[in-house]
Amino acid sequence: MTTIKIYDTTLRDGSQAEDITFTVEDKIRIAHKLDENGFHYIEGGWPGSNPKDVDFFDKVKHSTFKQAKIVAFGSTRSPRKKADQDPNLNHLLRAGTEVVTIFGKSWDMHVKQALETDLDENLRMVAESIRFLKQRTSEVLFDAEHFFDGYKKNPEYAFKVIKEAERAGADWIVLCDTNGGSMPWEVHSIFETVAGEIKTKLGVHTHNDSELGVANALAAVKAGALQVQGTVNGYGERCGNCNLVSVVPNLKLKMGLDCLSDEHMKKLKALSSFVDELANRSHWNHQPFVGKSAFAHKGGVHVSAIRKNRETYEHIDPEKVGNQTRILVSDLSGKSNIVFKAQEFGLDIDSKDPKVQELLEQLKRAERLGFQYEGAEGSFELMMREGLGQREEHFEFVGFRVIVEKRREDEAPIAEATVKVKVNGVQEVTAAEGDGPVNALDKALRKALTRFYPELEEMSLYDYKVRILDERKGTSAKIRVLLESGDHNSKWGTVGVSEDIIEASWQALIDAILYKLGIASRHEKVTPGTPAP
Amino acid sequence: MTTIKIYDTTLRDGSQAEDITFTVEDKIRIAHKLDENGFHYIEGGWPGSNPKDVDFFDKVKHSTFKQAKIVAFGSTRSPRKKADQDPNLNHLLRAGTEVVTIFGKSWDMHVKQALETDLDENLRMVAESIRFLKQRTSEVLFDAEHFFDGYKKNPEYAFKVIKEAERAGADWIVLCDTNGGSMPWEVHSIFETVAGEIKTKLGVHTHNDSELGVANALAAVKAGALQVQGTVNGYGERCGNCNLVSVVPNLKLKMGLDCLSDEHMKKLKALSSFVDELANRSHWNHQPFVGKSAFAHKGGVHVSAIRKNRETYEHIDPEKVGNQTRILVSDLSGKSNIVFKAQEFGLDIDSKDPKVQELLEQLKRAERLGFQYEGAEGSFELMMREGLGQREEHFEFVGFRVIVEKRREDEAPIAEATVKVKVNGVQEVTAAEGDGPVNALDKALRKALTRFYPELEEMSLYDYKVRILDERKGTSAKIRVLLESGDHNSKWGTVGVSEDIIEASWQALIDAILYKLGIASRHEKVTPGTPAP
Repeated sequence: MTTIKIYDTTLRDGSQAEDITFTVEDKIRIAHKLDENGFHYIEGGWPGSNPKDVDFFDKVKHSTFKQAKIVAFGSTRSPRKKADQDPNLNHLLRAGTEVVTIFGKSWDMHVKQALETDLDENLRMVAESIRFLKQRTSEVLFDAEHFFDGYKKNPEYAFKVIKEAERAGADWIVLCDTNGGSMPWEVHSIFETVAGEIKTKLGVHTHNDSELGVANALAAVKAGALQVQGTVNGYGERCGNCNLVSVVPNLKLKMGLDCLSDEHMKKLKALSSFVDELANRSHWNHQPFVGKSAFAHKGGVHVSAIRKNRETYEHIDPEKVGNQTRILVSDLSGKSNIVFKAQEFGLDIDSKDPKVQELLEQLKRAERLGFQYEGAEGSFELMMREGLGQREEHFEFVGFRVIVEKRREDEAPIAEATVKVKVNGVQEVTAAEGDGPVNALDKALRKALTRFYPELEEMSLYDYKVRILDERKGTSAKIRVLLESGDHNSKWGTVGVSEDIIEASWQALIDAILYKLGIASRHEKVTPGTPAP
Repeated sequence: MTTIKIYDTTLRDGSQAEDITFTVEDKIRIAHKLDENGFHYIEGGWPGSNPKDVDFFDKVKHSTFKQAKIVAFGSTRSPRKKADQDPNLNHLLRAGTEVVTIFGKSWDMHVKQALETDLDENLRMVAESIRFLKQRTSEVLFDAEHFFDGYKKNPEYAFKVIKEAERAGADWIVLCDTNGGSMPWEVHSIFETVAGEIKTKLGVHTHNDSELGVANALAAVKAGALQVQGTVNGYGERCGNCNLVSVVPNLKLKMGLDCLSDEHMKKLKALSSFVDELANRSHWNHQPFVGKSAFAHKGGVHVSAIRKNRETYEHIDPEKVGNQTRILVSDLSGKSNIVFKAQEFGLDIDSKDPKVQELLEQLKRAERLGFQYEGAEGSFELMMREGLGQREEHFEFVGFRVIVEKRREDEAPIAEATVKVKVNGVQEVTAAEGDGPVNALDKALRKALTRFYPELEEMSLYDYKVRILDERKGTSAKIRVLLESGDHNSKWGTVGVSEDIIEASWQALIDAILYKLGIASRHEKVTPGTPAP
């Protein structure tokens, strides 16, 4: 059975979206996540275009991937340059990937107006660039930019370009609907014609400008495409690229084609949320397949039918993509989830235990307040242990005060925090300055507690995220803070929610410390040491 | 030339979306807006299902519509009831619309499991309900629910159902992909078969569960559908309905079919935002055709090409749907972007002017510090005017102090801000409490300035975003704040960056106010008024 290869360009085309910027660190984490999800190709960036991408390829060289191939992206050589002297092509080689993708023009208008060169020179640019790279890397893909538009205007020339690419030895030829303006039947018939004449493996790269990105990719596969390029959640310039999170289940569950394994499919929802988190984008509730609402039933007719047979109003089994049915009037799946989680945390609890119901209520209350435990399982475990009467009190909170003062326009503000805590009846008051109020609070709190719990020295903060929950409320909106902390052998996420960012951060900080003292250091004996004089 | 009828169900199917609720007032305003936009049918609700919809039809009776027909929606009579005694059908008549749509089952599994009746009774339900309504209203539409799924499982029966509807005299038969699970080629071939055997006018109703809602609607039109049902912005249960805001331009500009007039097309973007506003949903920036980013260009290659010929990277002329090309200011930008932007702001500047180079340097410095002007064009314009010596000083900053104090664990913290500013040598000290430090600062600052600049009363904050730039630095990371503010006739974004979230928010707040005073109110005379005693 032929496998359709999934080629992800979230890190390159996806990051060209207006509101998306990834740090190099983000890009590396996403690349590994895509690899764990069974994606075949991961386009990491365009080393010729910006230093951040060069940095990415340098760093990524040292990490190993299960199966995904990392790809460096760039363009054909410039007009009237020798390939071996073209800086762009040399950047590609320096990236040191085993796979390289270059794009070239296949629309005559673009050759004349954008490149400002003649049609024959463009053919040489394509051929020479591919030959140059083919001699130096193991796999070369050629993206025929604007192929469908070009073919509609001047089929002979568009065809000549990919014929050149084939002759030059490209391993893949990818037909691109760069402007996202084509209709599915156009993509299908043009692709079919090309597939009849080209022996090289063909791929497709579509955009969503007509809200047809996914449809166009599927139409191409129907006509013989063996590779689909796109991005997670459809990120990308303008209206985005074709959304791989929708393409994959359509290929697999609707068209019966092999692409990702069943196990990988089950992780699609998690992948979608993970990438949204790093892009600091709020989750698209109505996203096909993986959205929170994708299998949520509200209409009375639907709800009663769905109870009798889920197939009545669900086009697939949600579990297959890691999602679940939600009946908005009364969520039945809740209780079993609580028990499932408890077991995960090694807590012994019975589903008939009334505490389970209480925990469920508490969880729902918290979620209504804006808490979200995806990525904050540390706080979730603490909440559970508390609900089961298993949470130890390591210190008693008394109070805090934070002052931020700015005295002159050209002067940086001073942030100072005072914290009062009690450990075994000993009250501790400490103050600290910091880069901003939250950092000052963090420092003061650790200062106060480290005397009693030296193991806090081992703990450090890895990640601090802030999400405004109801943005339209302006500066009085609710704020959710996610912290990622860890020590030598584990990592944990904690969450806080409040209209006051300092209070929200405080909650997440306290949880992070309690997790360290109560759970992470569970195996070591945790009792307050004698305070150093 | 045949006209494809546009049937909107935003007010009924659209409002079944998990996060959308319209008041009766909202529904009436939207109905009139759809009418002004040339839509042919407006489905107002399901009077049988809830009192709010009954209310809507009572109110809407008294208002007149240019051309749109208001439609009441409901189901066929219940099993083993007489049509004239069926409450649901009578509700439909009481709505008093000239057009009525009823849905019936065409999937045998649904008849048996959801309706729990036999196949012949379902045929009678369809026929008798249509006859009953046809005698009492001028136009009756029959929605064949789950038609495509039904046809795939049991074509004979699915076909029997619509044949009954035709015999009973339905004016339209609408084939529905209720679960949104069909592929475009399936929709096309099934629709084609039906169109060959049914004389009644055919419509299509699709959902977006496979991210193919728009593609499926277009496939049906290719196969003979004369009516497309959908919603504005694709609202709807689960993953939503087919998005009419994308269907219309595809029909008109890509398929060359008549549906809405050119004038109505130009109002699509405004319609999309209007409905988002009433639904209290923030605008989908990447929405095809009408999104803020739909014709926004960031990639350097794209920007230079778009300048030479917009067709290079735009699939349609954005003006046709009321949208426009935007060139994004970002680290990719060069001198020409600066000049382009200056012209946009109505600033007269020559590309040879050394100030342009200085501005470019300043922009790059700012971006290295973490400033980002996409979405913060207000701050960018202020920076430009300052660079060109055109920025007016409306007040002098002296200082601020923010205190956040929490005294007990179970007690909400108190946030208080003090602000000192000078306006025409008059020093003003004000303090305010708020929901968190930033809100307190915001309030105190406005309090201080509104006495002198009453027009600040017109300004409000729409959006507040916080992005941690180097998350891995934990609580000492750099923070970028984006604010969106506006008044009765415009909106502007401003930005601030600092390790201190309060300082970052302060910068963005100051810019927002300066923009209001110096630019938004440009045409009104802006001089400090005499402070009220």
